[in-house]
Order: sequence, then structure tokens, then C-alpha cells
Amino acid sequence: MSPGARPPRKRRIHKRVPPGSRPGTLIADPHGSAPVVRAFGWGPGGGEELVNASLEDLAALRQRHALVWVNVDGLGDAQVVRRLGEIFGLHPLALEDVLNTHQRAKVEDYPGQLFVVARMLQQGMPLSTDQLALFLGPGWVITFQEHAGDNFDPLRARLRSREPELCGRGADYLAYALIDAVVDGYFPVLEDLGERVEKLEEEALHRPVPLTLHGIHAMKGDLLLVRRAVWPMREAVHGLVRQERALITADTRLHLNDCYDHTVQVMDLAENYRDIASSLVEIYLSSISNRLNEVMKVLTIITTIFIPLSFIASVYGMNFRGMPELSWEYGYPATLVAMGLVALGLVFFFRRKGWMGRGARERAREQSEIDRL
Amino acid sequence: MSPGARPPRKRRIHKRVPPGSRPGTLIADPHGSAPVVRAFGWGPGGGEELVNASLEDLAALRQRHALVWVNVDGLGDAQVVRRLGEIFGLHPLALEDVLNTHQRAKVEDYPGQLFVVARMLQQGMPLSTDQLALFLGPGWVITFQEHAGDNFDPLRARLRSREPELCGRGADYLAYALIDAVVDGYFPVLEDLGERVEKLEEEALHRPVPLTLHGIHAMKGDLLLVRRAVWPMREAVHGLVRQERALITADTRLHLNDCYDHTVQVMDLAENYRDIASSLVEIYLSSISNRLNEVMKVLTIITTIFIPLSFIASVYGMNFRGMPELSWEYGYPATLVAMGLVALGLVFFFRRKGWMGRGARERAREQSEIDRL
Amino acid sequence: MSPGARPPRKRRIHKRVPPGSRPGTLIADPHGSAPVVRAFGWGPGGGEELVNASLEDLAALRQRHALVWVNVDGLGDAQVVRRLGEIFGLHPLALEDVLNTHQRAKVEDYPGQLFVVARMLQQGMPLSTDQLALFLGPGWVITFQEHAGDNFDPLRARLRSREPELCGRGADYLAYALIDAVVDGYFPVLEDLGERVEKLEEEALHRPVPLTLHGIHAMKGDLLLVRRAVWPMREAVHGLVRQERALITADTRLHLNDCYDHTVQVMDLAENYRDIASSLVEIYLSSISNRLNEVMKVLTIITTIFIPLSFIASVYGMNFRGMPELSWEYGYPATLVAMGLVALGLVFFFRRKGWMGRGARERAREQSEIDRL
Amino acid sequence: MSPGARPPRKRRIHKRVPPGSRPGTLIADPHGSAPVVRAFGWGPGGGEELVNASLEDLAALRQRHALVWVNVDGLGDAQVVRRLGEIFGLHPLALEDVLNTHQRAKVEDYPGQLFVVARMLQQGMPLSTDQLALFLGPGWVITFQEHAGDNFDPLRARLRSREPELCGRGADYLAYALIDAVVDGYFPVLEDLGERVEKLEEEALHRPVPLTLHGIHAMKGDLLLVRRAVWPMREAVHGLVRQERALITADTRLHLNDCYDHTVQVMDLAENYRDIASSLVEIYLSSISNRLNEVMKVLTIITTIFIPLSFIASVYGMNFRGMPELSWEYGYPATLVAMGLVALGLVFFFRRKGWMGRGARERAREQSEIDRL
Amino acid sequence: MSPGARPPRKRRIHKRVPPGSRPGTLIADPHGSAPVVRAFGWGPGGGEELVNASLEDLAALRQRHALVWVNVDGLGDAQVVRRLGEIFGLHPLALEDVLNTHQRAKVEDYPGQLFVVARMLQQGMPLSTDQLALFLGPGWVITFQEHAGDNFDPLRARLRSREPELCGRGADYLAYALIDAVVDGYFPVLEDLGERVEKLEEEALHRPVPLTLHGIHAMKGDLLLVRRAVWPMREAVHGLVRQERALITADTRLHLNDCYDHTVQVMDLAENYRDIASSLVEIYLSSISNRLNEVMKVLTIITTIFIPLSFIASVYGMNFRGMPELSWEYGYPATLVAMGLVALGLVFFFRRKGWMGRGARERAREQSEIDRL
Repeated sequence: MSPGARPPRKRRIHKRVPPGSRPGTLIADPHGSAPVVRAFGWGPGGGEELVNASLEDLAALRQRHALVWVNVDGLGDAQVVRRLGEIFGLHPLALEDVLNTHQRAKVEDYPGQLFVVARMLQQGMPLSTDQLALFLGPGWVITFQEHAGDNFDPLRARLRSREPELCGRGADYLAYALIDAVVDGYFPVLEDLGERVEKLEEEALHRPVPLTLHGIHAMKGDLLLVRRAVWPMREAVHGLVRQERALITADTRLHLNDCYDHTVQVMDLAENYRDIASSLVEIYLSSISNRLNEVMKVLTIITTIFIPLSFIASVYGMNFRGMPELSWEYGYPATLVAMGLVALGLVFFFRRKGWMGRGARERAREQSEIDRL
Repeated sequence: MSPGARPPRKRRIHKRVPPGSRPGTLIADPHGSAPVVRAFGWGPGGGEELVNASLEDLAALRQRHALVWVNVDGLGDAQVVRRLGEIFGLHPLALEDVLNTHQRAKVEDYPGQLFVVARMLQQGMPLSTDQLALFLGPGWVITFQEHAGDNFDPLRARLRSREPELCGRGADYLAYALIDAVVDGYFPVLEDLGERVEKLEEEALHRPVPLTLHGIHAMKGDLLLVRRAVWPMREAVHGLVRQERALITADTRLHLNDCYDHTVQVMDLAENYRDIASSLVEIYLSSISNRLNEVMKVLTIITTIFIPLSFIASVYGMNFRGMPELSWEYGYPATLVAMGLVALGLVFFFRRKGWMGRGARERAREQSEIDRL
Repeated sequence: MSPGARPPRKRRIHKRVPPGSRPGTLIADPHGSAPVVRAFGWGPGGGEELVNASLEDLAALRQRHALVWVNVDGLGDAQVVRRLGEIFGLHPLALEDVLNTHQRAKVEDYPGQLFVVARMLQQGMPLSTDQLALFLGPGWVITFQEHAGDNFDPLRARLRSREPELCGRGADYLAYALIDAVVDGYFPVLEDLGERVEKLEEEALHRPVPLTLHGIHAMKGDLLLVRRAVWPMREAVHGLVRQERALITADTRLHLNDCYDHTVQVMDLAENYRDIASSLVEIYLSSISNRLNEVMKVLTIITTIFIPLSFIASVYGMNFRGMPELSWEYGYPATLVAMGLVALGLVFFFRRKGWMGRGARERAREQSEIDRL
Repeated sequence: MSPGARPPRKRRIHKRVPPGSRPGTLIADPHGSAPVVRAFGWGPGGGEELVNASLEDLAALRQRHALVWVNVDGLGDAQVVRRLGEIFGLHPLALEDVLNTHQRAKVEDYPGQLFVVARMLQQGMPLSTDQLALFLGPGWVITFQEHAGDNFDPLRARLRSREPELCGRGADYLAYALIDAVVDGYFPVLEDLGERVEKLEEEALHRPVPLTLHGIHAMKGDLLLVRRAVWPMREAVHGLVRQERALITADTRLHLNDCYDHTVQVMDLAENYRDIASSLVEIYLSSISNRLNEVMKVLTIITTIFIPLSFIASVYGMNFRGMPELSWEYGYPATLVAMGLVALGLVFFFRRKGWMGRGARERAREQSEIDRL
Repeated sequence: MSPGARPPRKRRIHKRVPPGSRPGTLIADPHGSAPVVRAFGWGPGGGEELVNASLEDLAALRQRHALVWVNVDGLGDAQVVRRLGEIFGLHPLALEDVLNTHQRAKVEDYPGQLFVVARMLQQGMPLSTDQLALFLGPGWVITFQEHAGDNFDPLRARLRSREPELCGRGADYLAYALIDAVVDGYFPVLEDLGERVEKLEEEALHRPVPLTLHGIHAMKGDLLLVRRAVWPMREAVHGLVRQERALITADTRLHLNDCYDHTVQVMDLAENYRDIASSLVEIYLSSISNRLNEVMKVLTIITTIFIPLSFIASVYGMNFRGMPELSWEYGYPATLVAMGLVALGLVFFFRRKGWMGRGARERAREQSEIDRL
């Protein structure tokens, strides 16, 4: 019922490499899945796709084609990473970062290659993120993903159909297209969060339950995750746009600028949702206080009306000898009338205080106004 | 009664283009309205206005006049956008942004043209925003609006009357005038928000109801929307002022600086209202607590006065055999007097505590002081 | 009693000029007061003061003297502003800002003249601000004020007495002296706010009433107003200090730096008061909670002590036939003793919980400690 | 008992000079104490110390020695300040700042001299600050203090003992040593605040009373004072380090950098304490709420158990004729048993809700865990 | 049970050197432990390790080897620090900082040497930090630690095994490796904090007790400590990366950049935890309010149902003479039925208000939903 969710389960955050050991040591996550390698090669002379390619095939592919894209899904085998690093001359420090899957998004310049880490958002309750490590070199792009499953299928289709817009350009354009696909993947996640915000807003305003607060808390956790993923991503893309590099053409930078705009837009929305979530907490807490007020008013009204009446009754329940009222002919009805007057007086008092007497009509009107909002 | 409003309904935020597809793909919003094209051409040799012009007319218009302004209302037809792009050589990435109507305000330099996105605020409950995409080239301005309805009618009148101040200058001055009209359109919206702030302030201070908090929440949502629209607008205008460009003369930049001042003023007011709104939430919550205190005091006073009296009465309602008081001649009146003394003692105690005894006069005086404020 | 005040009444914030109209259009506020012009001229050959001078007199005055200061109080007549602009060559965009009296403080360079907007704080409940527009040109200073009433009388006296320190320097020094007088005028306002802070602090700590919170809210509103006035003023003065300009000598910039220091000091104090005000809200809210606790404790103690006693009494008020206690000789006194023991036990329980039994002495001591603070 | 203190009494903040008067006017505080002048002169030819020196002595001292330090305690006589200014050629604007004792710390370059304002913290409840104005010229240092009492005695001892480390260097090194002594004087104040934080933390966690909140508020006030004193001091020292000046050698700047580190450390601690203080307010407020919960539970349990029992008793206290239970042989004991069962049932209900039945053991264990923390 | 901990005990923060004394004075902490010196020397001609080396040995070691690392554990003897300073020419101001163990992390350039202060986090309840002072000169690294116990053992092992990656490079690489080991040591601490966050989240959401808030407060204190340690560390490492220095090769700077990334990641996580902790306080406070609501509802329901019933009973317990109901044949059962009807009516009223009647099933379902989260 409530769009609440368990807050993100924190994942292992330590580096697997023990402190003080040689940097560049490659140790795979023992729980990582086995790598699946898929490669595309293309150029003026035609294109080719290899699935589950051996490392030797890749070396050959690179020779045969002007442009090569190798994608590795699953980081369970450090050997594959190391060998690929040898074939394409990837920098050891960057390779260590590939296996250490808790990197923030970043761009690093190594001689003759550019290393980009991006984080992909995975929908779910709670949200999670996946690391994409991307190497851009002259004529090749290598990508490593922690798990299978990405947004790149339309790109693969465009490669297979040898779309000139994509295949007629350099490796930097492919790298841009991959980063753009990652950023485009943020939008459905944000849209989903937007729907959760709306549901929680509806709940907090009109029928708050403790679950509502849990839901707001869970959403705040997810928004923190989004911020942690997108903020550095934004900076990284900005770094690609701002700084001239030999490996990236001016035209690709123009496209990257478009991509940068999208990251700004995502951050903007996420911050917006955070502001609304904070406001919802206030709404929720005030509604709890309002209810307490309601409860206390009912208690006070009932108690305050009956306590004096009971007192009168108990006075005439006393067993004193000389109580003349008891023998009066109209003693009993007079007492009942007196009780009625006391009760009416108290009701009048409460109405004047505004605790009672907003009749059903007033309430109904107010409720309808709330609903209209 | 309460100036509260439903928080902004989140609109679709995803790009309509699937992730990974070719950038520059133009896909119109299927729910967009059909484009209405209106064009002005003018120059030393006179002026002309075309309504519902065909695209061929526009190409001819451009030939006939030194200066051209084409405005398109409604983005339901990607074909119109594409063709206009061809006639004036608009950049494909910018055209994609035209159709993707959730852009933040921004300025982008493309070769031989300047692309500006601005957001217009649309009054209403809740507020909404409309995108204005503006291309400035040598001798022409092209504007695309999501929906019909804008602040540009005085400008059109000035064009029709061939006002020298406007028609004797270049296309950059027209672009400035359009942006200035957008920014001027923020002021009535802010004024309206200012009135809502005042009403909510009045309510929160003097007669808070749950609707007040809903109203504050709705207003905060609208202020977030204003910030999301105006902040990037401010940056965009600042970018136009700060940086020299071939397409914009120094004189126009002086005018744009004036326009920048207005965006700063709008942000300033919006931030001011946000601060007041936060303060109002505190006021509201404290007033709820105050009421609870009031309720509890009444309950406590009534209960505490009558409980001992009832106890005394119930003691003399016991049926023990040997209760000498019951047979005393003045037992009953003595008991009543004792009860009266207990009640008076308790009233005295509560007065000393300050829970009672601020008589009607004191309350009236305080109330009048509050009202005076 | 409470230094609370109604929050600043928002004034009209829209530009009077309709959106889209020609910039530089001068439209006076229809509610503005009629302009009163006062001019000083001085130089090596002596000095002169004109009150209610006609515009022709001013043109002549400018010819006669090396240095001229024209001050206009009241902006109800756009014609006066326009004519003055023609006489001294004031820039149309700046003149529009003169009439649009909701400008933020700013410095703008126009060819051959410097345009400064400053905001003067007007004491009162609530605070308000007045706009001072100042033009500095070679040999002349023109000032426009929204309303009569300023801090410049000592300056006028110095001009009349032909004080060499002031009259022996250029127009830039007079402009500095005017700005300095505006900034010096902030200090009494801040001092007044400081006294309100102290009073509210005293109230919130020792005898909080709902009016206290209203007072804090009103003070926060006034502090926002101060910030909105002084922050841009600080930036404007900083801009005058930092940037070399032909119209301002190095010596005057040294004096302006002193003036900048004062704006920094004012902002510093205002921020300080804001922090204290936020803290006061917490104090106030916690004191409300404390009182609720007190009320509830009294209710609980009284109720909890008497409820069991009343229960015992009502048991022996039952009319069962076989109730042996009723006929015991010492039944009644034994019951009274039992009741006393129950009451004593409960009192002991509450004392151990710390809800009772801080005797009058302890309270008095604590109160005196609070008072000492 | 509580380390609370009355918040800083605001001192007069206005400039004594009326707005619009000639800058550089020297007006002494009428309540200032009479100046006490103490001077040191030293150089290759030996050293000398003058106490209560006349202004003529100072002029002579300056002639006799390569290096001179003049210290003035008390600013009650503008004449002394003016004369000293003439002897050493101090700038009039700076001298005005000397007498205006509410300056923020700052560094100002005047021709041939450097003017530094520093603020010294004075321990006490509440904290207060004292202004130190320091002029550094070629071969001389002049210092003005608002009140007697400073941290400079070790420096004086080093001068008297003609310590080569100090006396063998220039006036800039003495200026550094004075500033360093001021900054070192912040540490005991911070240490004292640290102890107050610990005491308040202890109180708020384990035995919160209203005084605790007052103490937190007073501490926040003192921390604001520290921030207002130290933050500009940090900036001022940074300005001395960053910028090369003829009057300050590179070696002295290295020492000043050390001093800058200390100001950073002080700000760091003060911010830390502010964060803790905010957290303590939350703790305090939640503890009040917890107590209210406790009170309400006791009330609810007692009331809820006895109300049904009293109801049963009052039913059998009715005087109806046909109440068969009253004449049953075991009516009375059966009723008592029924009452016992009802009470037991309610106790069981409250235990299941967790409001009762955490026995003494559980409470003791939890208390010990809290104490252990 | 609760992962709460006593907040960090503030340590002495004052400098041991009295204010005004000569900078560079070395005074050891009287409670410091005796220094233990361990040195490594290596180079093309082989390596050597000295434990508890005398200062003469160190001077000789430096002669024998191209590269030397001297580590000192314990700062209880200022003499050792002074002598080491003489052997390696360490700057006096830096040596003073070595003994003053409350430095923020920083990098300082002294002629011919680089001085780095780093802070190591020590796990525990509460967290604490240890200072590492590191000097980098041509061919040597000197490190001083406050206490024994560090993360450097893997490094020592690599030195002993003469690993070429480490021993074949310069002293700057060793300095990097030491700093990197310090930064790597932050990760387990953060992971531990992450587990505490999860436990507190679980507690605050599902079974909040006062200890939970204490735990959150303690964790916030630890996070402040982490921030105070890591933030300057990040800046210091950034300073090493950004600025070219003769003592650090480009390759080492590449490695330091990797290290900088890790400090950013640590800060990122710490800020994340702080945000979650703030959210937990809200959750905790709202859960207290919810419970109060529950308590009050039970009280209100029971009281409100029985008070009218008791009133009815006490009416018929009155001893008036003429009460016809008392003698009616069905008076008693009719009264019981009337009471039952009143009770049912009230139950119905409460159910409609939603205070009762969410049956056990609904509660169980909601509870399971909460648990599922």
C-alpha cells in the first residue's frame, strides 16, 4: 500500500586489496560472475560481431578492423581483465579500479587512453547501482560491467545495421553514445521516484500512517543513492566537455555537452524530490499532532461533561441523615434538570471554544476542500 | 478559504527518444497540439506579417526581408520543426531539445547561431512552466513554444507599428526583447505568490487549520518550481551578458544586463518567500502545541477539582454501620462546606500556577495586541 | 509587551511597465509624491544652494559651478526625471531603474557616468526600505529618493559651511560621503534589532507566551529585509572598491573600503541575530512541551491518587446483603486508614519517580539559578 | 549546576561618529579608561623600557633605537591616539577604527604601514572580546588595546631578557609574535567550551532539566561570538600569509602560516561544538517527549484499571428494587473475584502492549547500559 | 543491544607551549610513551633494517644507503625528535607540529623537504585519531607516530622482500605508499560505521528505545570526528596531486591521484551516513509521538465508554424518595440494557473515527508489511 521500501542495503565498501600492498594488484571479487565477452569490429571494409570471444580472437579482431568495441559482463575472473589490459595496453591503476566496483564516476587521462567510470542505476526496491568502466583508445573502446544487463541494445542494433551516423565516426563517438545511454537510463528511475513522491504526498496529506514515514525515509535513502551516483557523473561528463583532448573530436564534445545537460536535469529533479520529501516529514508529523489534539478533545469533552454530573449524583447518594432535598417531592426531577443544565452549559462552553459544534456540514465542506487540492 | 493548492503534478520527464538511439532524432509529443506558424519580416523596405504561413512562404519571406521572426506555437508535428531547421540551418541537437520540452533554461553556441531555451511561468494552481526555444541567427529569430499563449503581444504591436526603437535594430535586439518579456512575465507570478504568503501568514498566526499546512506545502512546491525555472534562466542570461559574441552587439548586452538584474530580483524574492514559508511551518506547529496545552489544562482543572469532591461524596455513600458523621445534625451542610473549601483551594492553586485566572480582560487585551500586529 | 511586529507588508513588486514594451520607458508611480528638487553648486569661486529649483535653474547652476549636487525627493513626476536626464545626459536604462523603486543595490557603469542604487533602511514596525539612486558624472552627483527623509543633513551642513575636507575634493568624494551616510544609517536599525533580540530572548527563556513566537517571526521577517537590502549593498560597495574607474580617485577608494567594512559588519550582526532567532524558536517550543509535562503530571498525580480511594469507597457503597466488613465495629475507621495508606504509597511512588517532592525550596533555588543567568 | 550562562549582552554597536560627518574624526568612548602607555625600544646598542611614558618620551625613544614597540591600554583619551598618530604617521582612517572598538579582524595596507585589527577572546560567562589594533611600520609596532589585560607578558619577558630569537629580528617578527599570542589565547577558551559541551552532553543524555536547554542556548551564543571573532581573524592572517609585502619578510610569513593553521584549528573545533550543540537540542527535546509518554502511561494504566472496577461497584450501589445478585449468598465475594479478574485481564493487556512488565530487572539492565555509554 | 556509544571524549586541545613563547620550542607530552625507532635503509647495494636504533646508527645508515625510512613510535622524548631533526635538517616549525599532536592533516613545503601531517582513524567506541607526521627529503622519509600500531606492516614486508615495485623507486613513492596505507585504513572504519547505521536504522524503524537516540548521537559524534580527520586529509592529498614539486615524480602523482579518489569516496560515505542519521532522528521522534497517540487513544476509549455508564449507575444510587424507576419491575434490567446500548454506541463512534476496530487482522497485515521492508 505504501510506496515505502527498505533502505539501500549497504554493500561491502572496503577495497579487497589489503592496505599497504602494491597498487595495481588485480584481485577479482570471489562472488563475481564469470566474464562474458562480446566484441564488435567494424570499419570501411565491413563489420563483425564476436560472442564469447577468446582473448586471442580479440587480438586478431583488433588487427582486422579500424574500430573495435569489446564489452565484458561480469568481473569474476581477474585473468581476463589482466589479459585484455595487455592486449590493449590498459593502465594497471585503471584496471585495479575496474575490479574495485565501488568507484565514483570519474574521468582519468592515461597516456594514449582515457579511462571513464560511470554508474548505472538499477531500478528496484531499494535502488542499486552498477559500475561501468570504459576505456577509450585510438580506434577502440573497452567496457567492463559488473553484472549483465544494460541499456546498450539499441546501440548494438545500430552497429549491426551499420548505421552510418554511428559507424562512420570514430571510437570517441561510440564512447559518447555509451555514456549517453547510461545517462538516458537515469530518466525512468527518476520518473519512478517521481511517482513514489506523489503517492507519499497523497498519503502524508490525507491518510498518514507510520508506514508513510518509513516510505519517506526509504525514498530519501534512494535519493541519496541517486545523488551519489549522478553528481560525480555530472562532474565527469563536464570534465569531458570542458577539456580538449586528442582522443575526442570537437563534434563529439558538442554531443557530450547535450549529455551533460541531461545529468544536470537529473540532479535538478533529484534535489527537487529531496526538498519535497523534507516537507512531507513536516506534514506527517503535524498530522500526528493534529490527531492527538482530536483524541484529547474528545476525552476532555466527555470527561468534563460527565464528571460534574457524577459528582451531583454521588452527593445525593450520601447516607447523611439530614438531607432535606432527598425528601422534597420534586427533588429527583429537579436534580435531573439541574444536571441537564450543567451539561448544556458545558456544551455551550466547548462550542464557544471551538472544540465542538463545527457540525457535520462544516467538516464535510473542509474535507471536500482538502480533497479538491 | 486557504490559499493552499495541490502540489505540481509531475509531468512526464523522460525523453521520448529511447536510450541508445541516434541523437538528433526528432520525435514529436503525440499529445502536442498542431503547430501554428506566425512570421514577421521587416527591414528598410517595409514590413509584412504572415499568419499560418506555409514553410515555402517562410523561405520566400526570408529572401524578401533583412530581418525575420518566425514563431511556432505547438510542437505536435516534428515535420514542421525539421523543415524549419532545414530552411534556417538550425543544428539537429538543438532541434531535438526543442521537442524535448523539459529542458532547463540555457544558452548554447552553435556555428553561426545561438540557441536559447527559456522557461515561461504559467499562473495557476499549481504553477506550471512552458518552454520557449529561441534561435538567433544573422537577421532572423525563430521561436518555438509548447503551447499558445505568451507575453509577446506588445512586441508584435511594436513590430506592426514599425517602432524605430525595435525595428531599427538587429535581430539580437528582438531576441533580447523576447527574453525580457519572458522575465517580465515572472513578476505577476511572484506577486501572486507574495499574496499567498501573506494570506498563509495571517492564517498560521491567527487561525491555523490543517489546510494552512497544506497551503504552505503547496506554496513550497510552487516556489521550488519557480526556482527550477528561474535559477537556470538567471545563469543563461548572465552567460549572454558576460561573454562577447559576434551575434550580439554591445548595446544589446547592456539591455540584457538590465534583464539579468530582474532575474536576480525574482530569485531574491522567491528565496525570501521560502524562508518565510519555513518560519510559518514552525508557527503552525507551535500553535497546535499551544492548543493541546489549552485542552489539557481544561481537562486537568475540571478533573482535578471534581475528583476529590466525588471522593468525599462516595465516602459518605458507604454503608458501614458505625459512621458517626452520618448522624450528626450538621453532617450534611458541613460536608458541603468542606467540599466548597477543597474546590476553592484547588482553584487558588491553579491560579497561582497561572493556568486559570487570567480573566477575560487579560485575554481580551492580549488578543487585541495580537490583532494589532 | 512583546517586541513582536507584523511582518513586512509586501509592496507592489511588479514593474509598472507592461512586459514587452520599449525599455527605457519612464512611467511614474501614480501614488508617488511630487518631486522636490534641492541643489548645491560649489567650486573655487564660492557656493550656492537652490531649493525647489526649476530645471532651467539647474542647467544654469551646472554652468556656474565646478561641482554640483542635485537631490530629488519624490518620484511622482516622470517628466522631472526625464528632463534631468537630458540635462546631465543620464542613461535611459538607468532612469527607468530610478522610477522602478524595487531595485537591489547595484553599481552600473555607463559611458561617462556611474549609476549606483542603494537601499536605505527606515526604522519602524515593520522595517521598510527606501531606494536611493545616485548618478556620478564628471563634476556632478544626482540623487533620487523615493520619499523625503534621509541621513544627509550633516553633509548638507558641511557643504554650507564649505568644509575644505568635503568641498576641496571631487564629486566622487561626495558620492562616497552619501553612500557612507546610507551605510551609517544601518547601525541604529541594527541596534534596535539587537534590543528586540534581547527582549525576545528574555521572554522565550523566562515567560514565553504565544506573542513571543509572533515576535520572533516578525523579527525574522525584518532580518530578511535587512539581508535583502544590505547584502547587495555590500557587493555594490565592494565593486566600487575593487575595480579602478576613471571617475573615482584612489583616495576615495580607500574611504570606500572603510565603508565596505561597515557593510560587512552589518551583515555579520544580522546573521548573528538570525542564528539567535532560530535558537529562540527551539527554546520556545521546548518550553511549551515542558508546560504540557507539568500539566499532565498534576493531572496524573491527582487522578491516580483519588481513583483507587474512590474505588474503595464505592465498594462499600454496594448494597449486597452479605458484606461482613460493613457490620464490623472498626470497619469504617479501618477503611479510612487503608485509604490513607494507599494514598501515602502513591505519593511515595510519585516522589521516587521525581514527579513530586521537589519541595518549594528546590524549586526556589532552581528559579533563582535561572534568574541569575 | 548547569553550565548554562546568560547569552552575550550585546554591546553598543553604533559608531560614535554621527552619520555624514567627516571620516577620520576621532571621538573617544566617554566610558573608556584612561590610556596607559608602555614602550620598549631595542636595537644593536641595547634596550630600554618606558612605563607611563609621555608622548615626547616616545618621540625621543623612536630616535634612540632601531626598533620600538609602543602599547596603549585604554582608549578613553582621543588626544593620545591623535598625537601618537602624528609621531608615527598613522593613517587617519585607521585611527578612527582604533577608537571604534567593534571592528572585525582585518588587515589593511596603508602607504608605509600595515594596519591589523585582531580580536582577543576574554573568558567569562558570557564570553566577551577585546579589540587589539596593531600598526606595523619600518622599525616600529604600535598596539592599542581597549582594556588592560593581555597575553603578551611572556613576550615582554623575552624582550627584557633580550632574547636573540626575538630581538635579533625585525619589527615584523614582533608583530607576528603578538598576533600569535592572540591566537594562542583562543585555545584555553575553546578548551573551556569543550568542557561545557561535555557537561551539557552528560546532562542532556542522563538528567535533562530546563536549565540544560538554557545552557545549550548560552553556549551557542558563545560559539557564535567565537565564530564572529575567529573567522575574520583567520581571513586576516591568511591575507598576511598569502600576499607578499615589503614590510614582512619571507621567514615571518612562514611563521604566520603556522599561526594561520591554529586559527583553522580553532574554527574547526568551534564548528564541531556547534554541530554537537544542535544534536543536544534534539536529545533534550526527545527526552521531554519520553517523559510525557511515561507520565501518560502511568495515568492510563491506573485509570483504565480502576474505571471498570468502579463501574461494577456503582452498579451494585444502585437502589433498584429487583436486583437478584444483591441477595445471593455469594454475591459479594463473586463480585470481588470478578473485579480481580477484570483487573488481571487489563494488566495482562498492558503487559502485552509493552507498557508494563518490563520488570525492575530489565530497567536496571538498560539503565546500566546507558550509564556505561 | 544498541550500537550506541559514548561520544568522543574530548582530548586536551591546547598547545603545550605557553602563549608568547618562542616558536619552535619542543616540549614533549609528559604522558607520551617512550620513542621506539625503527629504520630501513636500501638501495642498489642491498638493504638493512635497524630496530631500536640509536641516533648515531641512523646518521650512519643514511650514509650507507641511497634510501632511508626512519619511523618513530611514541613522542614522549623531545630530545629524540630534536636530534633526528638535526641529522636530517628538519625545519623547527615542523618539528613543533610533530609534538603538538592535534594538527589537522596538511602539506607544507619547507626548503628541501616536504612536511605532511596525516590523521589515522583508530576503531573503537568512540573512534579516535592518531597523528602521523611525515617528512620527505631527497632520499629519505621520516615518520613520527603518536602511538605504536599502524597499517604499515605489509609495506615493511615489501621492503624486507626487496620488492622491485617499491624498492626500485624513490623516496617519494614510499611516502605515497605510506599515505595510501593511511587512507586505506579509513575503509574498515567506514564499513563499521555503515553497520552501526544499519542497526540503528533497524532499531529506529521497528523498536525505538531511548538508547537508540543515544546511539544516533554517538554515531553523529564519530562521523564528525571522521569528517574532521578526512576532510583536511583530502585537501592535503589534493594539494600533493595538483601542484608540481621537485621531490615528487609525475608517476607518483598519478598514484597519489588514485589515493585522492579514495579520500573523496570516504568523505562521500561519511556524508551519506550523516544524512541518514539526521533522517533517523526524525523517525525516532515520530515514533515516540505515535506511541503517545496510542496511549492516549486507549485512555480515551476506556474512559469515555465507562464514564457515562458510571454516571447512570450513580444516578440510580441516589437516595431520593420519589424515584419511580427504582420500583419498576424491569427497572434494573432496562438500565443494564440502556448501559449496553450506550457502550455500543460509543464503540461504534470510535470505530467510525478509526480509533478502534482495525481488527487484529489488519494490524497483523500492516506489521508484516513493515517487517518486509
